[in-house]
Amino acid sequence: ILTTPPGRDGRVNPAILAAAALCEIDEIYTIGGAQAIGALAYGTRQIPSVCKIFGPGNQWVTTAKQLVAQEAGGPAMDMPAGPSEVMVMADEGADPAFIAADLLSQAEHDPMAQVLLVSLDRALASRVEQQVAAQLENLPRGEIARASLGNARIIIASGRQEACEIINLYAPEHLILNVDDPAAIVTYIRNAGSVFLGPWTPEALGDYASGANHVLPTAGQARTFSGLGVESFMTFMTVQSCTPKALERIGPAVETMAAAEGLDAHRRAVSLRLSARS
Amino acid sequence: ILTTPPGRDGRVNPAILAAAALCEIDEIYTIGGAQAIGALAYGTRQIPSVCKIFGPGNQWVTTAKQLVAQEAGGPAMDMPAGPSEVMVMADEGADPAFIAADLLSQAEHDPMAQVLLVSLDRALASRVEQQVAAQLENLPRGEIARASLGNARIIIASGRQEACEIINLYAPEHLILNVDDPAAIVTYIRNAGSVFLGPWTPEALGDYASGANHVLPTAGQARTFSGLGVESFMTFMTVQSCTPKALERIGPAVETMAAAEGLDAHRRAVSLRLSARS
Repeated sequence: ILTTPPGRDGRVNPAILAAAALCEIDEIYTIGGAQAIGALAYGTRQIPSVCKIFGPGNQWVTTAKQLVAQEAGGPAMDMPAGPSEVMVMADEGADPAFIAADLLSQAEHDPMAQVLLVSLDRALASRVEQQVAAQLENLPRGEIARASLGNARIIIASGRQEACEIINLYAPEHLILNVDDPAAIVTYIRNAGSVFLGPWTPEALGDYASGANHVLPTAGQARTFSGLGVESFMTFMTVQSCTPKALERIGPAVETMAAAEGLDAHRRAVSLRLSARS
Repeated sequence: ILTTPPGRDGRVNPAILAAAALCEIDEIYTIGGAQAIGALAYGTRQIPSVCKIFGPGNQWVTTAKQLVAQEAGGPAMDMPAGPSEVMVMADEGADPAFIAADLLSQAEHDPMAQVLLVSLDRALASRVEQQVAAQLENLPRGEIARASLGNARIIIASGRQEACEIINLYAPEHLILNVDDPAAIVTYIRNAGSVFLGPWTPEALGDYASGANHVLPTAGQARTFSGLGVESFMTFMTVQSCTPKALERIGPAVETMAAAEGLDAHRRAVSLRLSARS
């Protein structure tokens, strides 16, 4: 089931309808926000309740997802997703214009978005600041980007090792390694949602066309959560099957451990069967 | 890190220490309950804070895990685990003594545990009730089992299809298919934590020795959660790398889609690079 807020004309954006058609989704409701989460969790006369709710949203949507997921019998949720982030690691050879463009492409999302540069070079940091100012001048969503840049930080790292430590502590949703040895550096990255290697891989590719999933952990959650994947829509169950002969071999270990825990009915479930065999 | 409540003598159960040694866990704290969750979430002078908390507990522990997992920057949790459950599906050929032993081995866990029988045969249901009463007589944890049996239900299903529908609706933590064709029936089961096939595979094997993980989704959560596995201790991240030539091919699609969304800084992050190439 897909829910999406209607436009001012009350209709669904045709680009969303086209994407839904490609995914063979034919059940679409024009509702968004926390009220969509409520409808999907509890069901309404029109909208059925679901088992799991996917997709990022603003803080109202995220809070609504967390509240319904916490209820007994409530739907599960994909992951807690907050405002978007990008962290760029750059060395002295990086083009400041590229870095500024990548920082702004994140900053234009949302006044709460966070953009960070971990620079191995102090002079580069200044040139990036100048480039950001220049590129901001005629940016249509410049006001949003300016607000977001209030949360921005430039961190000067003493070297590659310190830079990687900073990255792993921050655990960015998006990480751009704009350095001359990105494939070597990425082997030291443990905590990140999605990583973009080198100067020719802007984060915007991940938003639209590189094929990596775009629903990613934010706010340090990359320490413990992975991005969305096909397996997020699946469950597995374990299945075990014992023959009478196998039970004769494995059963005594179970009897011993159940007795050690004082769970006599557990022990008997095995003993009864072993007696039936002898 | 392992936490475990101390015994009355203030010491850790030696069986737990032996299990920890086998798993190469050498950092153990003698604390249990909701207070252990609080210590692991926020850290204390002795206990460091952690990224993710695993393991089932009573309702206080589960609630504490949910509360800390919901906080910004709080640790993740494995899954919401409530009181344990077993559902047995049985046909007319099943041994009522085996079924009763399996129901009791679940019932002795906890007064809140739930045991259910989905019987394809009404006469079998009566014989199981008699067997439960008989086996209860000298059970050490009989009082707990009796309390739990207050939540027990026997459901008479009209046939295999209805039985499978009931199972999938209930989504049991543990499912025993005590029928003559368990391998055929299991192909119809979508929602269960762990499944035990045939008369010689009591659920007690899963508790101790069959090798399947024993931390499983309860309270219908098997619709959306899987049991614990090695992957529960891992995260993955996506990595993408574009050459200048590849960006020339993939870039225009990104420019088109970014423009359609009105995200001009996204478009420019690509356009700027494509200009630098030409």
